[in-house]
Amino acid sequence: MEGNVVREGKTKILYKEKPGELIMEFKDSITAMNGRLKETIPGKGEVCSKITEIIFSHLEKNGVNTHFISRVSEKKLRVKELEMYPIEVVCRNIAFGSLLKRLPLRSGEELKRPVIEFYYKSDELGDPMLNEDHLAILGVSESEIKEIRGTTLKTNELLKELFRNAGLKLVDFKLEFGKYKSNILIGDEFSPDNFRAWLENRPVDKDLFRMGEGRDTVIKAYLEVLKRLEKVVN
Amino acid sequence: MEGNVVREGKTKILYKEKPGELIMEFKDSITAMNGRLKETIPGKGEVCSKITEIIFSHLEKNGVNTHFISRVSEKKLRVKELEMYPIEVVCRNIAFGSLLKRLPLRSGEELKRPVIEFYYKSDELGDPMLNEDHLAILGVSESEIKEIRGTTLKTNELLKELFRNAGLKLVDFKLEFGKYKSNILIGDEFSPDNFRAWLENRPVDKDLFRMGEGRDTVIKAYLEVLKRLEKVVN
Repeated sequence: MEGNVVREGKTKILYKEKPGELIMEFKDSITAMNGRLKETIPGKGEVCSKITEIIFSHLEKNGVNTHFISRVSEKKLRVKELEMYPIEVVCRNIAFGSLLKRLPLRSGEELKRPVIEFYYKSDELGDPMLNEDHLAILGVSESEIKEIRGTTLKTNELLKELFRNAGLKLVDFKLEFGKYKSNILIGDEFSPDNFRAWLENRPVDKDLFRMGEGRDTVIKAYLEVLKRLEKVVN
Repeated sequence: MEGNVVREGKTKILYKEKPGELIMEFKDSITAMNGRLKETIPGKGEVCSKITEIIFSHLEKNGVNTHFISRVSEKKLRVKELEMYPIEVVCRNIAFGSLLKRLPLRSGEELKRPVIEFYYKSDELGDPMLNEDHLAILGVSESEIKEIRGTTLKTNELLKELFRNAGLKLVDFKLEFGKYKSNILIGDEFSPDNFRAWLENRPVDKDLFRMGEGRDTVIKAYLEVLKRLEKVVN
């Protein structure tokens, strides 16, 4: 119906529809610990697609380019087909998660300045952290890194404010980037699956699932994020 | 006799003698796997102190500042007392060791360009790799990082050539840096304990010990390195 499946991941399916475009379908699945924890949460795909749409539209409106084109249906977005970089870009505002294993910081401590980290998307190597010299070895040039860093920092400023207006604290998030006709765009999604946000210092993101909360709690939190973001962008 | 012990590590003892100076004594011990492998190799301290002296003298002669002042006795060097950065700086020319767990490279492959990595010296956290944003959080400024990177690259160029002249291939090495009267100097040691070098593609460094070779093989290799370096600097 949507043409050929280009790629199916743990939470999304990409279909090729016409040249240069893809349909990105959000599944209702949720996974953690490299796929070892896995569940289906009815409605999750729709919520994540809507949050992604809100965020990417907000970024576009503010001069940050993403792959988002338009909504297709409840769980499906039309996006530009990118040539993806094999990296994940993490941006952190608050000391949490794996950063606590790297630096002597208190959990929940506000960072003096945002911290950006690059990870190599490799199941085989376990997604190791890379520095800019490693990226150069992978063929990502200095100017590409500079642009990706700049876009990530601008995204962080825009979204920190958006989340603040929505009564949420943006703890950290993950971006993926790709090339489209020699422009570098944000790809993938932006949802509570790959950002951390706190509402009165309690998570409203995938950490709930990681912590063993049931699907009702998880979907309620995701819906709360959606409701709050919808209110501030409209 | 040498005054107070300032610090005793796995392979060295630092004594305070007079203000601004330390005596660095090289022990005969060798350790690996965070101290779980440990042995004593008579003569090793002397050899490592001599290799360190040769390397640091060569660097000084070529405009790279180190903490080395003079030799005191067989196993002891007089050095400037630095305020150390809590980081290890690794420079790599050839894909080997932990780099193979981070990037999809062939073991022994020549890198397109040197790779520099920073590690946080923390037993508690297991010496994690840091990027420049993490270093900023630790209080190392951008200009300090730039200077440390520059010194590391210059050291690499000088020593790659020195080792090449000695018939050895400099695979990678670790430096530590510290501040002395607002200058950033190379501290610690430079020996087969913390560089990798290959003679006809076989290690002549601590990898021999890590691989389970006996002390005779290890000390023979260290002496071979010393002999070859002595020849090319004299």
